[in-house]
Amino acid sequence: MLRLALDAMGGDLGPTSVVEGACLFLKEDSSVCFNIFGDEAQIKPLIPGNLSHKFQIIHTPDIVTPDMKPSMVLRRGRSSSMALSIASVVSKETSGVVSGGNTGAFMVLCLYLMGNLPGVFRPAIAAFFPTKDGHFSTMLDLGANSENDEIHLIQFAIMGEILAKTALHIENPRIGLLNIGSEELKGNPTIQKAYNLMKSIPAFENFYGFVEGNQIMSGDVDVTVTDGFTGNIALKALEGAVHMVAHELRVAFKTSFFSKISALLSKPSFKRLKSRIDPGNYNGAIFLGIKGIAVKSHGGATAHGFASAIRTTKTMAGMNLLEKLEERLQDLPPELLKK
Amino acid sequence: MLRLALDAMGGDLGPTSVVEGACLFLKEDSSVCFNIFGDEAQIKPLIPGNLSHKFQIIHTPDIVTPDMKPSMVLRRGRSSSMALSIASVVSKETSGVVSGGNTGAFMVLCLYLMGNLPGVFRPAIAAFFPTKDGHFSTMLDLGANSENDEIHLIQFAIMGEILAKTALHIENPRIGLLNIGSEELKGNPTIQKAYNLMKSIPAFENFYGFVEGNQIMSGDVDVTVTDGFTGNIALKALEGAVHMVAHELRVAFKTSFFSKISALLSKPSFKRLKSRIDPGNYNGAIFLGIKGIAVKSHGGATAHGFASAIRTTKTMAGMNLLEKLEERLQDLPPELLKK
Repeated sequence: MLRLALDAMGGDLGPTSVVEGACLFLKEDSSVCFNIFGDEAQIKPLIPGNLSHKFQIIHTPDIVTPDMKPSMVLRRGRSSSMALSIASVVSKETSGVVSGGNTGAFMVLCLYLMGNLPGVFRPAIAAFFPTKDGHFSTMLDLGANSENDEIHLIQFAIMGEILAKTALHIENPRIGLLNIGSEELKGNPTIQKAYNLMKSIPAFENFYGFVEGNQIMSGDVDVTVTDGFTGNIALKALEGAVHMVAHELRVAFKTSFFSKISALLSKPSFKRLKSRIDPGNYNGAIFLGIKGIAVKSHGGATAHGFASAIRTTKTMAGMNLLEKLEERLQDLPPELLKK
Repeated sequence: MLRLALDAMGGDLGPTSVVEGACLFLKEDSSVCFNIFGDEAQIKPLIPGNLSHKFQIIHTPDIVTPDMKPSMVLRRGRSSSMALSIASVVSKETSGVVSGGNTGAFMVLCLYLMGNLPGVFRPAIAAFFPTKDGHFSTMLDLGANSENDEIHLIQFAIMGEILAKTALHIENPRIGLLNIGSEELKGNPTIQKAYNLMKSIPAFENFYGFVEGNQIMSGDVDVTVTDGFTGNIALKALEGAVHMVAHELRVAFKTSFFSKISALLSKPSFKRLKSRIDPGNYNGAIFLGIKGIAVKSHGGATAHGFASAIRTTKTMAGMNLLEKLEERLQDLPPELLKK
């Protein structure tokens, strides 16, 4: 049975959404059990009696607060629910960890406790996006870094490729480099250098070239590669646009008697629509390039959202993702690998 | 009567969408007339007889092609429809110009023929976005530059502020700086320096601080300031997300008999929704920081979209935008102005 680690103290909603999310997940998939880290007094009453055998509570007195700086996390967060849940992956008690806490702290602790995968300069954060052709794509980095050079981008491409192969079951993922135009001469020097490198390295036989922001969800590529600053802003812009449209949709269905009736009539269709565009269904950002499976749940995720993050973690944990990634990194020329 | 210049040869659909767009616009507002630049043989048959007095055709033999590099535009594009339509603003024959052509070429020719506004280092491109609270916001730069420093960002903030004041009628526009987190310590060094400058300059009494990608359309701020690389990607990510949701909406309304009926019933509500989220309604990116009114229509804009770009141009031209901008720039410390 696969055992996963849950940081119960991370999200804005506290242990409630974590435990409820885990219980929701168990309804669809009972092949998993959990080590849950945090304040036992808060966690214990939330677990339903019939599922108590699925949870092992590890009481941890400390928590990582949302405003804790990374440097302080390493000094004072070592006995937090977040750190101890990560440590359980390192000691192989669990196969992967989910936290809804402070992203910077989670990344710093993962790096410190698990370490980089051999050869990797910088870890990256990736997520999945629904595409117009009914499939999914992935984009990275979504904010692990605020500046990246061309070698980091090349490594992100490799990590994204393996993620798309294993988690999205795409045999030959098409890789696009995010830019402000598809012409070869556009963009900044880093992007230009990354483009030329990717064109010249045999390992990137499926390099699509530059893509623009509207192609992240168009289905043109399976992997969109970008630096952490741009990626984070693009991710949040996408989320903002979806919220905006969903809001206008709700307003539209309240404006007239007819539209209220039609909203009722079309409930099943909307359910499908919602499942395709609901950010909760895509909750769970994957940390790549570290020696362990770690998934960041959105801080404000509900139980439904947290269940999605657990689903992502389970998928990652069952896929030999790390082994495949280590192997694939060897296809890069040595100068593109960390010594 | 306000006279505007139209580059008939710019957009992907050629003179058809330009002339049809101008005629659509005249239906709602007959206070404007046009100098239209391009191939007379193509343009003339498209103009309806009853509106021919509204159009003065200026035959131009050359065109700027979509793949023409900026350097080549200056050498070989000087007698193009694009260049001559811009020149008509410089000579005050017209009050503003709209083109759907090659963005880089249009910017280069505007800069060359009109020149920078005094004090401005780099022009920027701005557009309007619907916000969740039912109003509008603006964002800049959307791609005039691929790299910017903190002084450029400060100048963009001033330009965006004046645009929001004049075109969106917002008395004290709230200005946000696009970043990957709202905490003061996040982001890259350029963003950090711009933040500290804006905090310290008295002219920015309405500085909101950092905003994230999901706040461009949330209504939290009226002006979102960013570099041209990030801005262009955020803009296109937003557009991509809206297209994706609109596509899923169409699919949802085709999946069952009930949903087809309900789609019919809710037509009026959808009309409102469409008018709020249809990118065509927001077509028209404004070039700021140059000595003239120039608006870039989307290359693929339909007649409806081109009419929106004309509406934007008319609004800009009637607002003393340039005078207000020149005056407001004087509130900046001298070291933040181009000598």
